[in-house]
Amino acid sequence: MSTDSDTTPDTEEAREQLIDLAADFYDQFADGEVPTMTIPTRTKSNIVFDEDEQVWVYGDRNSTRSAKTISGAEKILKAVYTIDFLSQQLEEDRSSTLRELYYLSESWDLDEAQFNTQDESNNLIEDLEIVSDVKREDFHMRPEESGAKVMGPLLLREQTNRGDREIHCQDDVGQGGYQIPNNPDTIEFLDNDAKFVLCVETGGMRDRLVENGFDDEYDALVVHLGGQPARATRRLIKRLHDELDLPVTVFTDGDPWSYRIFGSVSYGSIKSAHLSEYLATPEAQFIGIRPEDIVEYELPTDPLSDSDVNALESELEDPRFQTDFWEEQIELQLDINKKAEQQALASRGLDFVTETYLPERLDEMGVL
Amino acid sequence: MSTDSDTTPDTEEAREQLIDLAADFYDQFADGEVPTMTIPTRTKSNIVFDEDEQVWVYGDRNSTRSAKTISGAEKILKAVYTIDFLSQQLEEDRSSTLRELYYLSESWDLDEAQFNTQDESNNLIEDLEIVSDVKREDFHMRPEESGAKVMGPLLLREQTNRGDREIHCQDDVGQGGYQIPNNPDTIEFLDNDAKFVLCVETGGMRDRLVENGFDDEYDALVVHLGGQPARATRRLIKRLHDELDLPVTVFTDGDPWSYRIFGSVSYGSIKSAHLSEYLATPEAQFIGIRPEDIVEYELPTDPLSDSDVNALESELEDPRFQTDFWEEQIELQLDINKKAEQQALASRGLDFVTETYLPERLDEMGVL
Repeated sequence: MSTDSDTTPDTEEAREQLIDLAADFYDQFADGEVPTMTIPTRTKSNIVFDEDEQVWVYGDRNSTRSAKTISGAEKILKAVYTIDFLSQQLEEDRSSTLRELYYLSESWDLDEAQFNTQDESNNLIEDLEIVSDVKREDFHMRPEESGAKVMGPLLLREQTNRGDREIHCQDDVGQGGYQIPNNPDTIEFLDNDAKFVLCVETGGMRDRLVENGFDDEYDALVVHLGGQPARATRRLIKRLHDELDLPVTVFTDGDPWSYRIFGSVSYGSIKSAHLSEYLATPEAQFIGIRPEDIVEYELPTDPLSDSDVNALESELEDPRFQTDFWEEQIELQLDINKKAEQQALASRGLDFVTETYLPERLDEMGVL
Repeated sequence: MSTDSDTTPDTEEAREQLIDLAADFYDQFADGEVPTMTIPTRTKSNIVFDEDEQVWVYGDRNSTRSAKTISGAEKILKAVYTIDFLSQQLEEDRSSTLRELYYLSESWDLDEAQFNTQDESNNLIEDLEIVSDVKREDFHMRPEESGAKVMGPLLLREQTNRGDREIHCQDDVGQGGYQIPNNPDTIEFLDNDAKFVLCVETGGMRDRLVENGFDDEYDALVVHLGGQPARATRRLIKRLHDELDLPVTVFTDGDPWSYRIFGSVSYGSIKSAHLSEYLATPEAQFIGIRPEDIVEYELPTDPLSDSDVNALESELEDPRFQTDFWEEQIELQLDINKKAEQQALASRGLDFVTETYLPERLDEMGVL
């Protein structure tokens, strides 16, 4: 099984799309117009849940940055300098981080083009992503946080800057697994015997599944999320689903913050609404820990804190959680006033999770 | 080059040492004595800096837990149940996390033996480490956090629970590098062309060095610390130093919290004073960012916050930092009232760090 070519980003194309943006400013000047740049308004009120696609997207409202004002002119100036830097970076096939871009601007010859805060440069990169329709990864802007790790029956080829590497995510890696690179679009899937993807929130549970050989016995790709998952991890999960046609399941702690982790894997986040198509896997299914599991398996629990209760109540208002399943679970949790961690399953023995809990639940869900 | 056998922990020996502890209680009972357990007092006041070894160690004060009181008796009861669990775990060649132990105690038949909080079970494991002189890893207790990652000219063999894996940390890994397993004593070093170890605090800087091929050009083992380093990472660094005779250097942000990261690599931490011999590398050298670098290279900075100033002042009182070098640097930093991040070096261009800063500094330090 191999991937289609759109997963290996074409740097030349990305570069052209950036230069086109700068060319627009040039044309506006040439036509005697005041240059402007129009982007969707990126406030919470302009983000809507697309019921068909089941992900967050921008609404219809736009903002225009015009060189009519000093602050607008400075924004456009900074955009042009940044485009110049990115275009050179792509030409040299190099990359950098958002933080490096911020510091690097100190070396630019025009003081007004330099960024004052890192938020300013971060936001500009997001603007350019939206306006040019090129993803940050394709500008070769690396995130600070790297992705997590994968263990399971998957053979892949990764393009690294020192040549291609073929890696089998069980046979060629240590107990720690395969480390997802910052840009997982450098990965090509060569072959796999996987039946599904199992995303796991905590390192302790990930290690339990690997020690118990769950990936091997059930042909699972165990993907460690490590809390709120990095972009690279979410992107890889999406590609495993779309290209290898694998069901995606998510296994987290049983508390409102973990439901949000599931939400960001499946529906995307408000902050990256322009990238939902690229990062979100709406078909992902939630395994647990479910409030009903707390009751059924009599798991050791902690009481809900005030902020837990508030988070659950705001999830009841969140379109991503407005399904019968989630309403029932969240109301049950508010009712029992308890939360439980994944590893609380160990109260029934170290093998309960791999021999009983997961096989039964995955069977019910139609995954096994 | 190969490692000596003491790096592959002998589970049978660890098991015997644990059972000996339980046997002591038995003997005390048999002799008609009230059972007791004596351990070093683990408060800050009983931790001293060993000037010869240059690491933190426990002082002379001991505390005795006696079954004379109910709370003392419960502590000994919990210790016996835990020894029983660990001994069985070692017999079956399995492992578990501290958190799993806490939850698992809920399945024990005696209510009084169950842990009330996770701190209680964590502390008991530390007590057992100290009393039995066996490390947690040799009880097969895994930490929650995994180690970080390595890139460089090193061929190793890792014993995994699905067989041995030979991995070259440049040729057999992706851009993300080799993922350090929870217990790095399962690693055997087979061969290397490394001249030194370069520990790097942030992911962004680690990626910069890897992209620029610094590990390749300078025969460096680049070890990502990822903030305050996990036990596994510190243990691996120590082994790279001791077994491969490699100089260890540490490259962090230029602020008091980062100096503490250096301190934990080199001198150990107060929390793990009983493990300094196993985890700390007193020969580690600090590369920077130094306050003098902020001045010399005119790096972009942030002002010190109140908590930064307090932390610097408490470092001046810390025996680990009572050297001419550190006193000069910390006083300079208080004087200029500024701090800088590693990535601030990008203000002089993306290659400045690998082409100028690191080669010059490592040469001055006698490493290159």
